[in-house]
Amino acid sequence: MTTELTGDLSDVLRNRRSLRILDPEHVLGDAQLARLLRAAQWSPSAGNSQPWGFLVACRGDETHDRFVKHLSAGNRSWVPAASAVLITAHQVASGPEDDAPAFSDYAMYDLGQAAAMLTVEAGLLGLTAHQFAGFDHDGVAEEFGVPEHWRVTTAIAIGTYGDPSAADPALVERDRRPRVRKELSEFVFAGTWGASAGL
Amino acid sequence: MTTELTGDLSDVLRNRRSLRILDPEHVLGDAQLARLLRAAQWSPSAGNSQPWGFLVACRGDETHDRFVKHLSAGNRSWVPAASAVLITAHQVASGPEDDAPAFSDYAMYDLGQAAAMLTVEAGLLGLTAHQFAGFDHDGVAEEFGVPEHWRVTTAIAIGTYGDPSAADPALVERDRRPRVRKELSEFVFAGTWGASAGL
Repeated sequence: MTTELTGDLSDVLRNRRSLRILDPEHVLGDAQLARLLRAAQWSPSAGNSQPWGFLVACRGDETHDRFVKHLSAGNRSWVPAASAVLITAHQVASGPEDDAPAFSDYAMYDLGQAAAMLTVEAGLLGLTAHQFAGFDHDGVAEEFGVPEHWRVTTAIAIGTYGDPSAADPALVERDRRPRVRKELSEFVFAGTWGASAGL
Repeated sequence: MTTELTGDLSDVLRNRRSLRILDPEHVLGDAQLARLLRAAQWSPSAGNSQPWGFLVACRGDETHDRFVKHLSAGNRSWVPAASAVLITAHQVASGPEDDAPAFSDYAMYDLGQAAAMLTVEAGLLGLTAHQFAGFDHDGVAEEFGVPEHWRVTTAIAIGTYGDPSAADPALVERDRRPRVRKELSEFVFAGTWGASAGL
């Protein structure tokens, strides 16, 4: 495990963090919101299947009000302050339409890619994107009529960093914890799984 | 469907393409290789589970020689020219160790995120990253001793754009096809799945 990001990495990835202290006054404009979703739109996918969908909930709107009821207890303390929450879903079977595209085994992977591209675009716009899965997925699927061949997967809280002095100290402590990762030697191999690639 | 990328999007995502014409002379240095893998390393994951692994195959090395035998017929025409191929795997169960981390249901999604972050870093370095799944996954798992609780998932060909005049015309044609995507209105909803979010 390593706790410091040493070595070269582009600033947008180096500075990415999943933060909890969000400015409850910040409003995300439609142009920025569209730009985030365009990042997902142009993400790669297996056979260009594009097996992703998003429900948009902006703080104060009806979708947001209906979504926050489904948050886990732990996420109720910080998610509602986000400027927007994007609920994600991936396709898990072909649809009922006659011309439905074949289901791809890579749908969950590709949704992850789209979420990451969206997260990168958020960083480039000076926004923070914090993904979470702690909410009632079945409840959300029912609430918003998500079809059986799609699965609600994660949600992404979008916002700007808020004022720590006005925030719950427990959240401030979480946001200030060191970032910890496996060393490259623990997950990058050559020749045989587990054997060092010399990086 | 839309065939042109209209509207604002950061250049690194706007210019990303999965290209097939790769320069067979380009050599990827260890510093750049480490930087790509560092992008994956610092990607977010559920509970910081980091459920990703990579096998590194650089053109001309033994891992590469052993990997290319497993390529599908369609990928044999372009993948071997890549400077490096990164074979990806995600965790599908807890390991046999006493202190094995709990398996995360989001492992495939998180591997997709790590691959996307790596792809973004490649773009920022002037490299192209083309993901593919057309190879014998079971054969590769056996070849490199990938444990049962990991699943070989995709591979990522890294390189620089090659000379189209020296390339197979069929590959040139593939690389020049328009990029096609669903419109935002087809996958971004509010209130009810399928209802426009007005973007």
